[in-house]
Order: sequence, then structure tokens, then C-alpha cells
Amino acid sequence: MKLAEMTVGQLVDALSSSEPTPGGGTAAAIAGAMGTSLLIMVTGLAKSRNNTDEEKRALAKAREQLQPLATHLTKLADADSESFNAVMAAYRLPKATDDEKAARSRAIQDALRGATIVPLDTLRACADALAQAQAVAQHGNRAAASDAGVAVALLRAAAAGAHANVRSNLESIKDEEFTSSTDAAAARLSAAAVADASTAMQALA
Amino acid sequence: MKLAEMTVGQLVDALSSSEPTPGGGTAAAIAGAMGTSLLIMVTGLAKSRNNTDEEKRALAKAREQLQPLATHLTKLADADSESFNAVMAAYRLPKATDDEKAARSRAIQDALRGATIVPLDTLRACADALAQAQAVAQHGNRAAASDAGVAVALLRAAAAGAHANVRSNLESIKDEEFTSSTDAAAARLSAAAVADASTAMQALA
Repeated sequence: MKLAEMTVGQLVDALSSSEPTPGGGTAAAIAGAMGTSLLIMVTGLAKSRNNTDEEKRALAKAREQLQPLATHLTKLADADSESFNAVMAAYRLPKATDDEKAARSRAIQDALRGATIVPLDTLRACADALAQAQAVAQHGNRAAASDAGVAVALLRAAAAGAHANVRSNLESIKDEEFTSSTDAAAARLSAAAVADASTAMQALA
Repeated sequence: MKLAEMTVGQLVDALSSSEPTPGGGTAAAIAGAMGTSLLIMVTGLAKSRNNTDEEKRALAKAREQLQPLATHLTKLADADSESFNAVMAAYRLPKATDDEKAARSRAIQDALRGATIVPLDTLRACADALAQAQAVAQHGNRAAASDAGVAVALLRAAAAGAHANVRSNLESIKDEEFTSSTDAAAARLSAAAVADASTAMQALA
């Protein structure tokens, strides 16, 4: 069942079950989608902070960037579970002969790369949403400041959670070129996410 | 429509719409429910960190505390939207005569108190879940460390978001005894949540 079709009650139950998926990567992507959606909500309010045309243009521009990110993060919630299921399927491959062992090992490594790219993509989408958060925090209606604050907190938590998942998968990957470039990309995105979240929070204070 | 019956896709759409509810308080409660559920998941894994009976007892005890909190947080997601709708309904009451004005003013203040108690309850439930996070982080299976990390990050963000909503509602409440006692309770819960999140994160590092 696709997560987007699952009810919130079913999602909460599924996360608490000892089944391997959905897990933290999926929860992070959903939190990121919720945070992005709250920012979109603020950009769509009839009034901006000082109700100037310039503010409204800035909010419309942020909205345009944010809308595809909310959709993408919702899809990443499913992609995360699917990629983790692929890793477990690879671990279950036969390993009786040397050929089977080599094929299984390759399949595991391929699946792990796939399962690392998904939370990296979640981290990137959260960082991209947080890059728009400053404009929303600065120009959005003050009556929605606490909504924007929740949005930023959720996106920062989602980015941190996605980063933890990237690092956790990298531990089992043997391709050093992949691990070092992915690790560096994740660190850069994470630093940008933290900085943008902090700037947005200051604009809301 | 109850949020627990809404699909995740519908929730994300509803949060991004310019309708006043669901808003940040609801998103915070759902993030808290997801974080709590991930902690429950870790307590239910067949293996604990060192697989000792003592660890398993500690995890079972944490699980017992966490399960009602996940259910409660899911309900608070709805309660938050309902209490905010009640505030808006009070603002729409007639105000043609002095009697009507006085009745409307009382209704607004009552509704605002209601809308403040809900995020305070969300904050308390997140703090209670984070109080169990250390045991989960310390004794849970290392393979699920990134799930526990996402859980703690989401609960900390949910607590911060709920606290922002408490403060935002308190700004419009005239009952000083209520505002000062609620403000103090929220500050205490928030400080405990931050401290427990930090201890749990150290146990996961």
C-alpha cells in the first residue's frame, strides 16, 4: 500500500510495528512534506506581513519553489520503504556457491546505494525547502508565525533524520568513491539546512 | 473528517491549503505521534543492544509508557484543529449590542484557553515520550539507531512547535493567572524535553 493512500492512523501504527518498513527514513520524509506544506500555506494567505506588492511577489516565488518539493517528499516517503525492502531482498538471495555469493554481494551493494540515495534526496529536498523558509518567515503574515516556526522545526528535524539515515547506510557500502562523495554532499546539504533554519527562526522571533 | 482517517496525501494537501485548519499544532502532534511510534518500534525488536534480560525489561517498561502516548498524540492532532475552529467560531459571534459584545468576548477567551491547553498537552506528551527515549537509545538494537535518532529529532521538533503554539495563543488571553501558570508549565516541559532529547542523542552517538 502506498503511504500517500494510507491513513494517518495506519501510518502511526505501521511505524510502531516491528516490521522493518516503514521506518525512520519514511517518517523523516513525511515530516519534511508536512513542514513544506505549512510553508506553502503561509505563502497562500490573503495578507502578507506588511501587505506590500514586493512581499507578495517574494512569497509567490517561494510558493512556486515549495510546491514540487512537498509532492516530491511525499513520494520519497514511499521510495524510502521500497529501497529498504530491496536491501532486505538482496540479503535473502542464495549464497550456496561462490557465484551465488558474488552475485548476492553485488546485489546487496547495489541495493544499499539505492537506499542511500533516497535519504540523500530527502535531505536535499528539506534543504531546498529551508532555503525558501527565510522569505516565508520574513514576509509571511505574523498571525501564522507559529505555523512557520513549526514548519522550520519539522524541516530541520527531517533533514537531521535523513542525514542520519544516509550515514547509517554508508557504513555498509564498500565503494569508497561513492561513500566519500555522498558523505561530503550530505554534510554540505545538512550545514546549509541548519544555517537556513536558524536564519528563518531569527526572522520569526 | 478525522485526521486519523485522512490519508497522508490528503493531510499534506490540507496543511498546504490556506484554510485555517489543520495548521502547525496539528502537524506538531502528528510529528510527535510518528516519533513516539518509532521509539515503540525499537522497543519491539527481537534483539536489544546487548541482548540482556535487564535491557529487555527496561525496553518493555519504556514501551508500556510510550504506547498510550502515541494514541494520545494522534487524538491531539484532531483536538488542535477543533479547538482552533472553536476560536474562530467565537470571533464570528454577533457584536451589535453591549450584551452581545460581552458574551462574544467571554466566548473568545474561553475558546482561546481551550486552544492553549491542547498544544500544552501535546508538549507534555512529547516530553513524556522523550523521558523514555534515553532508555530506548541506550538499550535498543544498534541496527535501529538511526530510527531512534529520527524519533528523538521529530519529538524535539514537535515539542518546540507545540510550545510556539502555546505562546502564540497566550498573547491573546487576558486571564493573567492562567497565562502565567501556563507559560511556566510550558517552559518547564520544554526544558525537560530539550534535556532528555540531548541525553538520548548522546546515547545514540
